[in-house]
Amino acid sequence: MDKIGVTMIDHVAIAVPAGQLEAQVALYERLGFTVLHREEVYGGDQVREVLLRVGETGNMIQLLEPLNSDSPVAKQIERQGGRGGLAHVAFRVPDIQAAFAAARSEGLQVIDEAPRPGSRGTTVFFLHPKTHPTDGALGVLYEFVQEA
Amino acid sequence: MDKIGVTMIDHVAIAVPAGQLEAQVALYERLGFTVLHREEVYGGDQVREVLLRVGETGNMIQLLEPLNSDSPVAKQIERQGGRGGLAHVAFRVPDIQAAFAAARSEGLQVIDEAPRPGSRGTTVFFLHPKTHPTDGALGVLYEFVQEA
Repeated sequence: MDKIGVTMIDHVAIAVPAGQLEAQVALYERLGFTVLHREEVYGGDQVREVLLRVGETGNMIQLLEPLNSDSPVAKQIERQGGRGGLAHVAFRVPDIQAAFAAARSEGLQVIDEAPRPGSRGTTVFFLHPKTHPTDGALGVLYEFVQEA
Repeated sequence: MDKIGVTMIDHVAIAVPAGQLEAQVALYERLGFTVLHREEVYGGDQVREVLLRVGETGNMIQLLEPLNSDSPVAKQIERQGGRGGLAHVAFRVPDIQAAFAAARSEGLQVIDEAPRPGSRGTTVFFLHPKTHPTDGALGVLYEFVQEA
């Protein structure tokens, strides 16, 4: 049987209210983190993304500023009364197709119908945070990421 | 000058409503994670903690179930209408005293007056998520951890 096969935390994503991205980047640089990558992500995401390196093991912080009000990140910020904060946690896997098959065979509810392109050439899928058929809610939005 | 010197993400902490800890542990085991440590933490924390290993790099998920209504985790769950979810992110540092001094000299607002004992023999401090003297709020609760 396929295994999800998580090897590490890829990144922790943080929602940042519109207009505050550069001030947030400056704060994280004061924590000693360095910017690795910037990208505007379209499709269903609609965010301006900044990835920061955390130490030397490959863990990252991902700052997400909504490009418009259709972005799921904008909706999170709206639900939180205009404040940003923790958005999701992404786990790195060596084989996203195997991870997807394994998540389904474990009965975990997957949001995406199939692994799909993420930023910086990755392939990703998300688990549903709210609903689980037998065991109750995870309560957290989790992503799985295969690097390019 | 001292550096904060973060080497990696130590753990991502998740608030779990009272009575749901074992169901949550079972869900994380279905994700392929394994329980590393269990502890009841008293003092200001008042939580039942389960640490799960994420892959082989040392990253962990920390499930936190409040022991009583005085626990800050209970207060988070109450603010969220009874739901759990992402609570804080902890960064590992080699020298917690140096990290504390560096955070202060960067002007970052620290919650703890000095590094203090965490679970499993660690030494920790937290940054304040809401207030920053010059650059606005981090918007996320961050912990720094030196291993025992």
